[in-house]
Amino acid sequence: MTDPTERTFSEPTEAIMQATYRALRNYGYADLTIKRIAEEYGKSTAAIHYYYDTKDDLLVAFLDYLLEQFVDSIRSIETTDPERRLEILLDELLVTPEENRDLLVAILEMRSQAPYKETFRDRFRQNDDYIRYMLKAVINHGIDEGVFDDVDADHVTRALMTIVDGARTRAVVLDDTALPTARQTASEYVDAMLMPEGHD
Amino acid sequence: MTDPTERTFSEPTEAIMQATYRALRNYGYADLTIKRIAEEYGKSTAAIHYYYDTKDDLLVAFLDYLLEQFVDSIRSIETTDPERRLEILLDELLVTPEENRDLLVAILEMRSQAPYKETFRDRFRQNDDYIRYMLKAVINHGIDEGVFDDVDADHVTRALMTIVDGARTRAVVLDDTALPTARQTASEYVDAMLMPEGHD
Repeated sequence: MTDPTERTFSEPTEAIMQATYRALRNYGYADLTIKRIAEEYGKSTAAIHYYYDTKDDLLVAFLDYLLEQFVDSIRSIETTDPERRLEILLDELLVTPEENRDLLVAILEMRSQAPYKETFRDRFRQNDDYIRYMLKAVINHGIDEGVFDDVDADHVTRALMTIVDGARTRAVVLDDTALPTARQTASEYVDAMLMPEGHD
Repeated sequence: MTDPTERTFSEPTEAIMQATYRALRNYGYADLTIKRIAEEYGKSTAAIHYYYDTKDDLLVAFLDYLLEQFVDSIRSIETTDPERRLEILLDELLVTPEENRDLLVAILEMRSQAPYKETFRDRFRQNDDYIRYMLKAVINHGIDEGVFDDVDADHVTRALMTIVDGARTRAVVLDDTALPTARQTASEYVDAMLMPEGHD
């Protein structure tokens, strides 16, 4: 898999990504057009087509961009304490998205198209692989240090991402308490699976 | 909320629902048309429009139909043992859908449209309310009988539905192991939250 931390966005593509972000929040995926993105960008559609042939090419780049944002926010975590680091990762996955509810709506539309669009599917899978890789590294570190129980780190990581994806779907479809409920559930699950008996 | 167990489908509407089911599995939501449903039904589009004005009316009825199927499968559970009953409910939510992967694809497309279509949103919320109501009844029964710890049954129910919805989304977007992973996660969560200390 390509290391997403090695992807970079040049100044114009960064501005196009920010325009895409605003257009997705305003119009959703189904009603998104290059014209609407160009309006947000403040330039012509040709200025966008110079970098991206199609709307789908641009959206695949946008999924890379979102992962890059996430990776940046993770890179700024300074603590190496496994327990604290896992808490911060789960906050990034389940608390921070609260600020971007409209984006969650657009992402769910794109996810629902994954069975029909291989490029979307590949990108969602890569992003999920990468986030699971980061979670697993923290869990394995905690196991090595003896602060977490010796669990199947791959399973625990997939379980946590199931809670994350459930929260993202429920936040769009059902109710406003989906993210806080899932954050609490993730903590309860981490306590039950990773924390040695008698841990406070 | 309307009690979904009181909804019934007459013989022709039952046949239309089965045709809708097949058409959704074959074409997905975006490419679904009344014409394609009529082909599966083996009658004219007028025969469908006699019962349903629009495709969306028909799909809202289809969401009722799916809940009715689920309620029927639950009604046939004979055991009143809370622990066993909860296991069977979780199997219905996380094992049985494996047989209907194509339907999960179509349902996720409809879910992603919930922010734009109030009728879909209302129905998804009603269905979620009803399933949580059934889960909560089992959990409260177990608490009353002293076989489950005295937990916040509403939170535990929402947590379990977060795992269920995460599995449904991941099964469509990401990987083939999403449902079994979530089934295991649900059991681990139930053990941690509901089972008294020292329970095997």
